[in-house]
Amino acid sequence: MEKLLNSTGCTASVFPLNCSGTKQNNTVSSSEIRAAGFVLVHAGAGYHSESKAKEYKHVCKRACLKAVDRLRAGAMALEAVTAALTELEDSPFTNAGTGSNLNLSGGVECDASIMDGKSLDYGAVGALSGIRNPVLVARRLLSEAQKGKLSAGRIPPCFLVGIGAQQWALSHGIPPCPSEKMATKFSLAAYRRNKRKMELAEKTEHTVLKKQRTSSRTVGEFKQSFSSSLDTVGAVVVDQDGNVAAAVSSGGLAMKHPGRVGQAAHYGCGCWAENAHDSKPYATAVSTSGCGEHLIRTMLARECSSAVQTEDAHQALLEAMQNKFIGSPFLVNEDGVLGGVIVLKCCKHGDEQSTDDFQDLLEFLWSHTTESMCVGYMSAHDSKAKTHISRLPPGAVAGQSLAIEGGVCRLGVANE
Amino acid sequence: MEKLLNSTGCTASVFPLNCSGTKQNNTVSSSEIRAAGFVLVHAGAGYHSESKAKEYKHVCKRACLKAVDRLRAGAMALEAVTAALTELEDSPFTNAGTGSNLNLSGGVECDASIMDGKSLDYGAVGALSGIRNPVLVARRLLSEAQKGKLSAGRIPPCFLVGIGAQQWALSHGIPPCPSEKMATKFSLAAYRRNKRKMELAEKTEHTVLKKQRTSSRTVGEFKQSFSSSLDTVGAVVVDQDGNVAAAVSSGGLAMKHPGRVGQAAHYGCGCWAENAHDSKPYATAVSTSGCGEHLIRTMLARECSSAVQTEDAHQALLEAMQNKFIGSPFLVNEDGVLGGVIVLKCCKHGDEQSTDDFQDLLEFLWSHTTESMCVGYMSAHDSKAKTHISRLPPGAVAGQSLAIEGGVCRLGVANE
Repeated sequence: MEKLLNSTGCTASVFPLNCSGTKQNNTVSSSEIRAAGFVLVHAGAGYHSESKAKEYKHVCKRACLKAVDRLRAGAMALEAVTAALTELEDSPFTNAGTGSNLNLSGGVECDASIMDGKSLDYGAVGALSGIRNPVLVARRLLSEAQKGKLSAGRIPPCFLVGIGAQQWALSHGIPPCPSEKMATKFSLAAYRRNKRKMELAEKTEHTVLKKQRTSSRTVGEFKQSFSSSLDTVGAVVVDQDGNVAAAVSSGGLAMKHPGRVGQAAHYGCGCWAENAHDSKPYATAVSTSGCGEHLIRTMLARECSSAVQTEDAHQALLEAMQNKFIGSPFLVNEDGVLGGVIVLKCCKHGDEQSTDDFQDLLEFLWSHTTESMCVGYMSAHDSKAKTHISRLPPGAVAGQSLAIEGGVCRLGVANE
Repeated sequence: MEKLLNSTGCTASVFPLNCSGTKQNNTVSSSEIRAAGFVLVHAGAGYHSESKAKEYKHVCKRACLKAVDRLRAGAMALEAVTAALTELEDSPFTNAGTGSNLNLSGGVECDASIMDGKSLDYGAVGALSGIRNPVLVARRLLSEAQKGKLSAGRIPPCFLVGIGAQQWALSHGIPPCPSEKMATKFSLAAYRRNKRKMELAEKTEHTVLKKQRTSSRTVGEFKQSFSSSLDTVGAVVVDQDGNVAAAVSSGGLAMKHPGRVGQAAHYGCGCWAENAHDSKPYATAVSTSGCGEHLIRTMLARECSSAVQTEDAHQALLEAMQNKFIGSPFLVNEDGVLGGVIVLKCCKHGDEQSTDDFQDLLEFLWSHTTESMCVGYMSAHDSKAKTHISRLPPGAVAGQSLAIEGGVCRLGVANE
């Protein structure tokens, strides 16, 4: 049902080569099925080895199916996106929930946030330990705030961190999960490996560089050191009524300092969802992945959401990734800028009178500056999800180049 | 040396009435002195009783003097803004550092952030306990990140929270401060009073409203309950080289849930500083105060910084406060929107050839939707700071109306 767009301007039913930014052609065949809802998920922008590709794709498939199950049952985008995230967090292969990167102390501290495009409400948790599904706490913060003020007119929180966030979750009936259950064989092995690398690096740096910092280290070296550290997860959903929602969840950078909060808990940085309204002709939803510090300082989720408020979303996203991320004045001192985004752009629902094919097109896009990014997507009319590991073209340098791909589908009921 | 602008379009040497948004006239007399640096501070947008006005003004004065002392010694904006914030945090009367509002558990948890307009670097801490000056930790995070990557190419954090943030501070030589030293007679008394009010409200609500939340509570009721809860502090500075910096620090809302993080730790929400560069003709610096949740969801600091990138900063700020804050689509369900900002806008330094009087004007502005906002300002050529408690006009409703005031001065060396 969806058409993939590549750099040559034609539609393709298979995944295209990574495109270099040539303007796309939004031609859509008349045989498309209108779908009552759509989900696009990511299992992280980072580096996905071929050996683990199957696992990453598999979890993306399951996450899509969970979201679509909810959409088919008539759930709104917010509920469907939560279902997708829960599945992604539960996978031991992703850097979110179970299997999260361990921090410098060997602990698990998670960040997550969620945004509802209809109400524009938002919930986030940072550096949260001892809860299996951080996204459920973010979701609950959002829904509790929607109930109005607390006793004595106190304003409910939208962002909680650390032990306070954990206490809040427990007091709201979210069960605790022992930290040791959230660590996996893989995360523990990676921790031990990373720790050795750090100790070795510190020894070498201390001897050779004395007090000089490693400012000239390249992204390649970083990748080599902590190759699986960026696999944050996220999802964007549009439901049958055209409402959008977005969510993101992350265990953060491997060997991060305890208490470090990344983009996944940062408003405007980890996810963004905004239904169409007066000044916004298109509903948009974005979820990001990558190096939190880079994504925070460029507010990449909100930036991409604003950018695609235009007819040519593909070109707009490409320019945003080039000018507002890789070339951002906020990251000039970085030797490489690591991140990825998934984006939905769709028209306002209910525009029945429209004769313009473009008016009710759903566009879905992903772009990344990391080696690879794993995505999956599915409409409520599909029998199964499609998955893909997008990779930078051969010879492209991670942190300095980007890949961008995407497709289109119809949103609505079958019209044939 | 500065001229205050009021709604009638003339300059005034005393503070003007709150203006209703009439376009200002930037006329500047030729007798002005050029000043090598300028600081504008706030001791919070909230409610400042006449009885405490003297204390608030006094701390603003001291904070200005601290910053100007640094500027006169040739320090850059970042160092001067840190000096101002430290002074504001140390006052037992402000809701930041010592004297912070106590949270639901009776503890002190502080948020703070700082941004350097020259490098665009940023540091923030959230829900930080046991450190006397949270801004110094944010400042240290910024400067540590400027040294480049950590061992083994790890990316240094820009935002730390909770116990992890405290541990990081201690390991970087910032001394601990027992929590009981940060509570004051005033904050403890307010806590006991607030707790009684909460208990009473919960009892009443439970009886009368059963499970219904207090969504219809007015801002007035909130103010009545927790009248001194919004007095966050902040400062914006421009130095002799035209570099800007901004910072903000807060104890958060009174009776907040432990772990709640407000705008003061949120990138783009609590403070913003951006030197003039290619796409930004003016250097701008902003610091906000008020209800964190409202300031987060509207990203008010960054929004105001962008807005004043125009010739008429006064009108632009007025429109931003009206359309992007009070009238924000992100806050439609709020019955009142509480916040305040201080703003600097100045031209790129070194434009020696300019013959246009407007080219090297420094504009300083403040605006708030709260009952009142306490500000102070001073140039490096002034012998003492000026302070002011700006109040909404009689009859105006907090959360729905705004006050806006400001002035202009020259930045540079004396030209007479």
